Amino acid sequence: MVDLRSDTVTRPTPGMREAMATAVVGDDVFGDDPTVNALEQHVAQLFGHEAALFCPSGTMANQIALQLIVPPGGELLAGADAHVVTYELGGAALLGGISTRTWQATGAALNVDRIAGMIRPAGFPSVPTAAIAVEQTHNLGGGGAIPLATLRDLRAIADAHRLALHCDGARIWHAHVADGVPLASYGALFDTLAVCLSKGLGAPVGSLVVGNRERIARARVIRKRLGGGMRQVGILAAAGRYALDHHVDRLAEDHARARRLAEGLAPLGVVDPAKVRTNLVPLDLTKAPLDAPELAAAAARRGVLIAAMLPRLARLVVHLDVDDAGVDEAISVLTVLLA
Amino acid sequence: MVDLRSDTVTRPTPGMREAMATAVVGDDVFGDDPTVNALEQHVAQLFGHEAALFCPSGTMANQIALQLIVPPGGELLAGADAHVVTYELGGAALLGGISTRTWQATGAALNVDRIAGMIRPAGFPSVPTAAIAVEQTHNLGGGGAIPLATLRDLRAIADAHRLALHCDGARIWHAHVADGVPLASYGALFDTLAVCLSKGLGAPVGSLVVGNRERIARARVIRKRLGGGMRQVGILAAAGRYALDHHVDRLAEDHARARRLAEGLAPLGVVDPAKVRTNLVPLDLTKAPLDAPELAAAAARRGVLIAAMLPRLARLVVHLDVDDAGVDEAISVLTVLLA
Amino acid sequence: MVDLRSDTVTRPTPGMREAMATAVVGDDVFGDDPTVNALEQHVAQLFGHEAALFCPSGTMANQIALQLIVPPGGELLAGADAHVVTYELGGAALLGGISTRTWQATGAALNVDRIAGMIRPAGFPSVPTAAIAVEQTHNLGGGGAIPLATLRDLRAIADAHRLALHCDGARIWHAHVADGVPLASYGALFDTLAVCLSKGLGAPVGSLVVGNRERIARARVIRKRLGGGMRQVGILAAAGRYALDHHVDRLAEDHARARRLAEGLAPLGVVDPAKVRTNLVPLDLTKAPLDAPELAAAAARRGVLIAAMLPRLARLVVHLDVDDAGVDEAISVLTVLLA
Amino acid sequence: MVDLRSDTVTRPTPGMREAMATAVVGDDVFGDDPTVNALEQHVAQLFGHEAALFCPSGTMANQIALQLIVPPGGELLAGADAHVVTYELGGAALLGGISTRTWQATGAALNVDRIAGMIRPAGFPSVPTAAIAVEQTHNLGGGGAIPLATLRDLRAIADAHRLALHCDGARIWHAHVADGVPLASYGALFDTLAVCLSKGLGAPVGSLVVGNRERIARARVIRKRLGGGMRQVGILAAAGRYALDHHVDRLAEDHARARRLAEGLAPLGVVDPAKVRTNLVPLDLTKAPLDAPELAAAAARRGVLIAAMLPRLARLVVHLDVDDAGVDEAISVLTVLLA
Repeated sequence: MVDLRSDTVTRPTPGMREAMATAVVGDDVFGDDPTVNALEQHVAQLFGHEAALFCPSGTMANQIALQLIVPPGGELLAGADAHVVTYELGGAALLGGISTRTWQATGAALNVDRIAGMIRPAGFPSVPTAAIAVEQTHNLGGGGAIPLATLRDLRAIADAHRLALHCDGARIWHAHVADGVPLASYGALFDTLAVCLSKGLGAPVGSLVVGNRERIARARVIRKRLGGGMRQVGILAAAGRYALDHHVDRLAEDHARARRLAEGLAPLGVVDPAKVRTNLVPLDLTKAPLDAPELAAAAARRGVLIAAMLPRLARLVVHLDVDDAGVDEAISVLTVLLA
Repeated sequence: MVDLRSDTVTRPTPGMREAMATAVVGDDVFGDDPTVNALEQHVAQLFGHEAALFCPSGTMANQIALQLIVPPGGELLAGADAHVVTYELGGAALLGGISTRTWQATGAALNVDRIAGMIRPAGFPSVPTAAIAVEQTHNLGGGGAIPLATLRDLRAIADAHRLALHCDGARIWHAHVADGVPLASYGALFDTLAVCLSKGLGAPVGSLVVGNRERIARARVIRKRLGGGMRQVGILAAAGRYALDHHVDRLAEDHARARRLAEGLAPLGVVDPAKVRTNLVPLDLTKAPLDAPELAAAAARRGVLIAAMLPRLARLVVHLDVDDAGVDEAISVLTVLLA
Repeated sequence: MVDLRSDTVTRPTPGMREAMATAVVGDDVFGDDPTVNALEQHVAQLFGHEAALFCPSGTMANQIALQLIVPPGGELLAGADAHVVTYELGGAALLGGISTRTWQATGAALNVDRIAGMIRPAGFPSVPTAAIAVEQTHNLGGGGAIPLATLRDLRAIADAHRLALHCDGARIWHAHVADGVPLASYGALFDTLAVCLSKGLGAPVGSLVVGNRERIARARVIRKRLGGGMRQVGILAAAGRYALDHHVDRLAEDHARARRLAEGLAPLGVVDPAKVRTNLVPLDLTKAPLDAPELAAAAARRGVLIAAMLPRLARLVVHLDVDDAGVDEAISVLTVLLA
Repeated sequence: MVDLRSDTVTRPTPGMREAMATAVVGDDVFGDDPTVNALEQHVAQLFGHEAALFCPSGTMANQIALQLIVPPGGELLAGADAHVVTYELGGAALLGGISTRTWQATGAALNVDRIAGMIRPAGFPSVPTAAIAVEQTHNLGGGGAIPLATLRDLRAIADAHRLALHCDGARIWHAHVADGVPLASYGALFDTLAVCLSKGLGAPVGSLVVGNRERIARARVIRKRLGGGMRQVGILAAAGRYALDHHVDRLAEDHARARRLAEGLAPLGVVDPAKVRTNLVPLDLTKAPLDAPELAAAAARRGVLIAAMLPRLARLVVHLDVDDAGVDEAISVLTVLLA
C-alpha cells in the first residue's frame, strides 16, 4: 500500500518509539508533566512567543486560538477554503459563537487589499471585525506558502485596525523549509499560532497553541472545557519533541518527491508541477474521466490511497512513510486510471 | 429635519393609527389574537406559502428562518455584505451555531456559478452546506434587485444539491414594484422568507417569517426562546395589515424620488443614478472630502439626517415621510458639503 | 368565557387604547422614541436604578439580564421551578452559554443557607458561580412573595461572594401590593430586574430590564442580536405607562378575588386558601379525579379556561378582566368537575 | 511525596510502558488504528453495548454523551454536585446548549421519587426533560456507589417518561469491585456511559463513550468538532487495554487502604470510615482549624499532597502509586495539622 491520503498517517519511527518509552511523565492537568512543560517552552521559543499549550489535535489548537482572539458574537475574517472554516465541522460558530466572513481565493495567494476592504470597524452598525486567520501552508490552496512580505502587509493592516492575527500553521514547517523563513519570523507576525506535530513531522498525536502568557493561561481553561486536558501525556509530547529535533529539515525530501510526483502526473493535465512547492499535490479532476471519490476508490483497489477532498478535487500527500518507489507506484496507477 | 437615515423612521399615518385603535386583539402566545392570525394568513398567501409568523423585528425573522433551515454545526452560504452576516450582531453563529461561508460581490448581482462552486456536498470531510441566503432588495448592494431569472438559476442549483434557500426580503416589496414581479413568484423560489412591515411599508413594528406549516410550527418555539412571543400584539399587526393594503403600490413614488435624489447628487461623483432602482441611494465617499461619519455629522447640523454604513459609505433612504421638498433640501445640503 | 389561564390574556382598556392612539413615537432602535425613553426612565426611577430597556417579552428581559451578569461558561444558581429555568425553553444555556445549578423548593420560600452552600467560589477546580436569580412573586410557587428580610439575607450572601443578584419580577407589582414593600426597596437589593407590563398590569406587550447604565448599554446590543429591537414601539410603551399609572394599586382587588376563589375551592381539597396571597391560585390535583390537562379540557367545555402547568398542577389566575361573577362561575364549574 | 490529590496522578507501570512501546498503530481519524479499534470493541463488550469511542479525557467523553442524548435547548436532570455539572467548566450549556436542572443530595444516594418529580413531560409549556445523568462512583459524594436496585428504579422511571439515562462512570470500576456488580449489569441500565482509563486504572490518558452504533457514529463527528480526533493514538489505547487487563481487580487493595486511611483520621472528626467504600476519602473541614486550601498547603509542605475541592472539603484519593507507608505518612501528617 502507498498511503498518500494525508501526512497524518505516518507511524512512529523506532527512535520516536524509544523517546516515548523513556519519557518522564506527570499529571499535565496539574501542570506536573516535565516532558510536556519542556515541549511547550521549546515550541514557544521556536516562534519567539511567551508560552504554548499542548493539544490533542490541530482542530482543538485552532479552535482554542480563535476563542482567545474573537469574543462570542464577534467576527473572524478567513479564506472560504480555510481549514478553520471548512474542515472543523463548524466549531467556531457552534463552540465559540464566532461569525465568519470569508474571502474567496485561488490557491494560497492573499489579496491583502481585498481583505482590508472586508474589515468592519467598531463604531458602525455592523459587527466589528475582531481577527483575521490565515493558513500556512494552505491545504486546499495546494500546499502553497504565503510569502513573508505578504504576511507583513497583513500584519500592518491588522495593526491599523487593532485586529488580532491567527496562523493555522499545521504545516508551517513546510513553509519554513520551502521558503527558508525562520520560524521566529513567522511567529513575530501573529498573535496566536496553531502548529501540528502529527502531520509532516510524523509524531503520532499533538498540536500546540502558541501565544502570550495571558492568552495561554486562558487557553488552558478552554482546553479543559473542550475535553482536551490529558494526564500523563508526556508520552506523546516526547514523540513530538523527537519529531521537532529530527524531522523538520528532512521535509525537503518530501517536497522534492512531491514535485517529482506532480511532474509524473503532469501529462494527465490534472496538476501544474510549478505550483507544487511543498508536500501536497492537488489533482484538479474537472476534466478527468473519474471524479474524486471514484478515483480514490479505483486507486485504493490498486494499492494507492489518496484523498477525495471535494467532488472534483483529490489530494496526494507525501510524507515520512512515502519513498521513491511509492511515488513511482502512484504515478503508474494514477496514469492508468486517468489516461 | 429631513430624515433619510432609514425607511424604519416612518411614523404611523392617521389611517394606520385608526386601524391600531380599533384592532380586535387576544393573547397571541396562546394563538388567540385574531388580527395577528389574519395577518399571518394573509402574508403567507401573498407569497404562496402555507404559513407565516409575526416577529418583533426583521433580525428575529431572519434568525428564526436560518435556524429552521440550518442545523447547529451546519453551514450557510451568503454574501459577505448580507444583512444576516453583517448587521445582525453575529446571531447566526452565537444563537444558532450556524457557520457562514461568504461570497464577495459588488452590488446586488449574484454570480450563480461561483456560488455553486462554494457548495460543500455531504460525504466529504468538509462541513456540508445546508442552505443559501440572498437579500432582496440588497441593502449594502445599493437597493438593487436580483432578477427573477437569476433567482431561478439559484433555485435549480439549490435543488440539485438539496439545499434550502432563504430570502431576506425586508425590502422585497421594492423589488416587486420596481421589477413588476408578483410576490408569489418570489415566494415560489424560497423555502423561507423574512419580510418586513416596518421599513418601506411604514408600519411601526413587525416582520414575518414565511414557510411551510411544519417549519412555522418550529418557528413558534424558536421565537418564544428568543423572547419574541408577544401578547395582544394585534395592535401592531393591524398597522401591518394597513401598510400592506395601502403602502405597497406607492413605493413607486419613493423610487422616483430616490432616482431624482441620485441625479441631483450625481455631479458630486458619489453616486451613479443609473444604479438607483429602488429607494436606497448609496454614496461612495472614497474620493470625497469627508468620510461617512463626518458627512453624517455635518449634514445633521444642517437638518439632513443620513446613515454612515461604513467608513466611506453613506446611505440615503427615501420613504413615506420624505417629500419632494425633502429631496431638494438633501441635494442642496449635501452639495454644499461635498463640493 | 371566564379566562383564568393567565394574567397575560387581558385586553387593553379604553383609556389604554386612547394612550396608544395618541402616543408620540420615533425610531427606538435609533433611540428616538420619546414615549419609550420616558417609560424606561420612569421604570428605572421606580426601582431606584440608573436605566431600563423596553423588551418585547418577559422572557427576553430575563434572558438579557442573565447574559449581563453571567459570562458564557459561567454558572447561575436558581430554583428548579424558576421561570428562567423551566419556562424559557432553555434559552440561558442555548443563547447565553449559561449553566444552571438549581435548588429544589416548595412554594416561594427560600432557604438562604442552603443556597449559600451551593456557591462554588473562584479558585477551586469547579465552575465559579456568577449569579443567583429569584422570582418575585413566584409562579410555580403559587404566587408567593419572598419576604424583604429574606431577600436582604440573600443580598448579604451575594455580596460576601461577589455574586450578582437578579430578580425575575414579572409579577413584582403583586408582591409590592401584597406586602406593602416599596418598589425601590426591592430595586435596591438586585443588580438586575426584569419587570413585566403585560401580565397583571394589563398592557398588551412589554417588559423591561432594569440595571445600571453600563449594563443597560450592553443590554441594548444583546436585545438587537436577539431580535428585540423595535421601531415606533412607543405605541406599546404608551400602554405600559398607562398601566403603571392606573393598574398597580388595583391589584389588591385581584388578590381579594383570588383569595375568594381559593376559599370557594378549598372544600375540594385542592388548594389551601391561606397560601393564596396574590393573584395566582394553584390547584394540586395529586388526589383529584382528573389530571391537569383533563380538568382544563373539561372546564373549557363549560366556559372556564384554566392552565395545566404540570401533569397534576393546574393554575387559575385572577386579573383585570375577571370580575366577581367570573369567580363565582369558576367555583361552580370546578366544583362540579372535581367533586 | 505521597500524592493523594487524585487517582489521575498515577504513572505508567513497566508493563504498561512495554504495551505502549510495542503497540501497532494507524490513523484513528481514518478508523485505521487496530489497537484503538480493539479497545473500543472490548470496552463496548464489557458493558454489553454495541460500540464505544476513545476520547482524550473523561470530560470529553461525558460532554459527547450529553450531546448525544439531549438536543440543543433540551434539559438534563443531574445532581448539583455531579462532575458534569460542577467540574466540566459549563461545557454542557456552552458547547451543547443543554440546560441543567439539578437535585441536591448528600453523598451518592439517589432519591428516585424526588428525581421523578422533577421531570417535565412534553406537552406542557415547560421545557421537556430529555435525559438524566448519574455518577458512579460519585466524586463529591465521597466515592459512594449507587446500589444496583436504585439504578433499576431510575431506569424504570426513565422508561416511563421516554428519557435517556447517562452514567458518568469515570470510576465505575470501583463500584463494580466494591459491590460485586458485573459491568454488563450496569451497562444494561444506561443509554450512554463514559468510562475512564486514566483514573483508578492507571493508564496515562483516555476515556471512552459507550452506546449503540448510531450514537457512536454521531459521537465520532462530535469528537472531531471538539478537537478530540487523534491520529496514532493506539499508543495510548494500548496502555488503556493493559490497565483493563491488569488493574481492575487490584482496586480492592486501594479500597482497603482508603478505609484504613479513613480509620486513621477518624479520631480527628473529619471523616466517617463507615462511609468510605471505595478509593476516595473526603474530609469535612467544617469544624476543623484549617480550611481546605490551608490544609492542602500545609500538608504539601510536609510531603503529603491532597485536593481542596471546596472551601471546607478536602479529598484524599488512594491509587496504584500509594502504598501502606504512604497511608501511614498521610495519617501522621494530617493528624498533626488537624489536631
